[in-house]
Amino acid sequence: MNALTTDFYEFTMSCGCLEQFSAERKAAFELFFRRVPQGGGYAIAAGGAYAAKQIASLRFTDEDICWLRTLGRFDEVYLSRLQSFVPSCDIDMVPEGTPVFPYEPILTVSGPAWEAQFLETLLLLTVNHQSLIATKAARICRAAQGRPVIEMGARRAHGADAAILGARSAYLGGAAATTCTRAAQQYSIPPAGTMAHSWVQMFDSEYAAFRAFAKQFPERCTFLVDTYDVLSSGIPNVIRVADEILRPRGYSPYAVRLDSGDLLPLSHKVRRLLDAAGYPRTKIMVSGSMDEHSIRSLLDAGAPIDLFGVGERLITARDEPVFGGVYKLCAIRDTHWIPRMKFSEDAGKQTIPHRKTVYRLYAPSGEPIADVLTLCGETVYPPYTARTLHGKSVCLTDFSAAPLLRPLLRRGRAVPLPSLLEGRTLCRRQLNLLPERFTRTDSPAPYPVLLSPALYELRCSMNGN
Amino acid sequence: MNALTTDFYEFTMSCGCLEQFSAERKAAFELFFRRVPQGGGYAIAAGGAYAAKQIASLRFTDEDICWLRTLGRFDEVYLSRLQSFVPSCDIDMVPEGTPVFPYEPILTVSGPAWEAQFLETLLLLTVNHQSLIATKAARICRAAQGRPVIEMGARRAHGADAAILGARSAYLGGAAATTCTRAAQQYSIPPAGTMAHSWVQMFDSEYAAFRAFAKQFPERCTFLVDTYDVLSSGIPNVIRVADEILRPRGYSPYAVRLDSGDLLPLSHKVRRLLDAAGYPRTKIMVSGSMDEHSIRSLLDAGAPIDLFGVGERLITARDEPVFGGVYKLCAIRDTHWIPRMKFSEDAGKQTIPHRKTVYRLYAPSGEPIADVLTLCGETVYPPYTARTLHGKSVCLTDFSAAPLLRPLLRRGRAVPLPSLLEGRTLCRRQLNLLPERFTRTDSPAPYPVLLSPALYELRCSMNGN
Repeated sequence: MNALTTDFYEFTMSCGCLEQFSAERKAAFELFFRRVPQGGGYAIAAGGAYAAKQIASLRFTDEDICWLRTLGRFDEVYLSRLQSFVPSCDIDMVPEGTPVFPYEPILTVSGPAWEAQFLETLLLLTVNHQSLIATKAARICRAAQGRPVIEMGARRAHGADAAILGARSAYLGGAAATTCTRAAQQYSIPPAGTMAHSWVQMFDSEYAAFRAFAKQFPERCTFLVDTYDVLSSGIPNVIRVADEILRPRGYSPYAVRLDSGDLLPLSHKVRRLLDAAGYPRTKIMVSGSMDEHSIRSLLDAGAPIDLFGVGERLITARDEPVFGGVYKLCAIRDTHWIPRMKFSEDAGKQTIPHRKTVYRLYAPSGEPIADVLTLCGETVYPPYTARTLHGKSVCLTDFSAAPLLRPLLRRGRAVPLPSLLEGRTLCRRQLNLLPERFTRTDSPAPYPVLLSPALYELRCSMNGN
Repeated sequence: MNALTTDFYEFTMSCGCLEQFSAERKAAFELFFRRVPQGGGYAIAAGGAYAAKQIASLRFTDEDICWLRTLGRFDEVYLSRLQSFVPSCDIDMVPEGTPVFPYEPILTVSGPAWEAQFLETLLLLTVNHQSLIATKAARICRAAQGRPVIEMGARRAHGADAAILGARSAYLGGAAATTCTRAAQQYSIPPAGTMAHSWVQMFDSEYAAFRAFAKQFPERCTFLVDTYDVLSSGIPNVIRVADEILRPRGYSPYAVRLDSGDLLPLSHKVRRLLDAAGYPRTKIMVSGSMDEHSIRSLLDAGAPIDLFGVGERLITARDEPVFGGVYKLCAIRDTHWIPRMKFSEDAGKQTIPHRKTVYRLYAPSGEPIADVLTLCGETVYPPYTARTLHGKSVCLTDFSAAPLLRPLLRRGRAVPLPSLLEGRTLCRRQLNLLPERFTRTDSPAPYPVLLSPALYELRCSMNGN
């Protein structure tokens, strides 16, 4: 990512920081969100690996500096500081794939004030986008109840990054494969692909098109069967080609894909036709307007569907395409850390002051029961009385606590991270451990995010209460 | 864009094309959409310049070829064809910034079948994303009735491409400036930026923060005034700093930015305070949840707002983040062009066959009155009887017709294109020429898209009517 891929005010403010304060002034920021998109109960944290790589290699080119100079806004001291910039911040983040909840820091930054400020847009851009798609993918994959979900949204993604990093995030959240070839290559995600209507139209008949495809790719043939008419043309042609070309070579059609029509009755009729023709193992894949709601409604109604192809509604998180992560100053340091807090016209936009540690508390069964935010250095042992964000006391007994944030960069250098596949496994396991009331698609219960007594008191005192 | 940034089935199908047909077989595809997003009456075409650049430079690296080989799906003939690939298609598109309507081709491709097929995902990905944002920007800017709209959504964009190309598309659609520095540099868009809450929190008081900012950037100071309380703290501190620092140097505050609260009464109160303090030219900027609806409702109610900062609702086209452009085969050619048509289970997904020309018909006043799709080579003179997509006859008199599609690539090479600024001017002028019934935000009338008699008859005959 080019170093100029950031909001212009990051330059104004970082320049101002260097002018107003000593370069030794440190600042601590945290990234959190206030609401789970799409009415869900959890979000899936993502973007750490990409952000770490981008920040560790963040440098300003001569061309960047020249262009900034032409604006006539920045002095030479600042520009030469940019020119020799090498990142030096410490950044921590919850591991990719972790379910996270409103108001808890999912990423923290600590370092020179001007640099920590400058990283805001890059971090938000990355974590917001990738967490959005990972969260949506987790919702969709859970609705599919173990049936593979194939991410196939590249053509509706918001540019190439959105297609590639979106496919990676979808895989993290549980998708089984992607049609985005570059994502498959770059992140070792299984590639998937079938045929378009244009393949069928390229030939003089649907039969000829299927026949040619079966001859060329006999092993995992997926036929798109709705170019003319599914039941009177598509499926009969699949069966004819399967009998003539595939069966003699020991194959059967891997799947048929339905991309239009009334999918519930259609899938039943297709299943019966395939079974009657001796192809009970040929899978039925559906695509077109799939998301967690349409998938659940089809499966609840008993549709015999084996695979889901999910396009625009996953790659854009169509029903709410925004993950509202924000990046807020929580402390500054000249000689020692001083907490900072934002007040704002909207009470909901107030922040929780100071540098924090986040613990996830687990019951003996392994089930997460609450997350607790503490001041740095505090420990959490049972029995423990914490406060909700609204001030209610909660007493917790019989738990073990584990810190959630892990190093991402140390003094500007990337730290080795778990693999994408490890993150995908973590995501699935953690979601399976969470009680259903927190993870259901509609109207989930809010997962408890609590404050330590000391943090609660600090917030009250800064708030003038 | 890496050449693998495409759906995996483009490889399967282009490989199949080369196997099944002679490399001489040509295909013609067209890109169109079926519905304007967000219930609007028009879309703004965008993405041509970027697509042309990407296609003209599309090459496969050795690494790409090696990876494809590892999949064990593609023969060496195909892989060496990819390795020596140089684009050779002809591509036409309506100029960027043109208002376009459902079912008309906004981009056409003609060339070797395997190559024309392969380009599908790249073209859709680019045109869908950029047209989505340009369309949304046009809606928002028209709602602002001439007041400048600043694009400031980078932190909520779907990755870096979405931030940068989204900012470009927003400018094309009418935005006045962007906060995305890289977009400003790359596309000569005016950069804009104010300050974040963190700037204010970095200091011991709001007054100290404003004072430092005014000293450093006195010329176009925009103060963010809602960190503590707009009326009792933010505005009084702006006035004090303006009196102490700016006025003695001959400046006044350029603007104050309101980012929260009830903006209608708040903007009135802020206006009165600024006027009373002798700063009637200081502008009021608002940000936070702005889109065409909130802007119109504020302005209809008489809010004294001069500038709008628009973030996530523009950069993601939040209320409908998908532009549904599709890429369909319309003809193939061995010795001569043969029309092709897709039928499908859904009547609305049928395509209009054959290679086409698109004319925009203008009344003598300069007002566009209809677009007519014809077979290639047909001309359109008044009086002219065309058919609606549903078959109704329409007689048109007293118009002049101009073709809408212009060359984008010729034999794979990019053709010089109008500048971004020219596209932005074209967009504004064309929208101003269109009658209000086609451009209004809610429940617009459908703009007439008509078929020539010959094209209508071809479609009927292929449909078996």
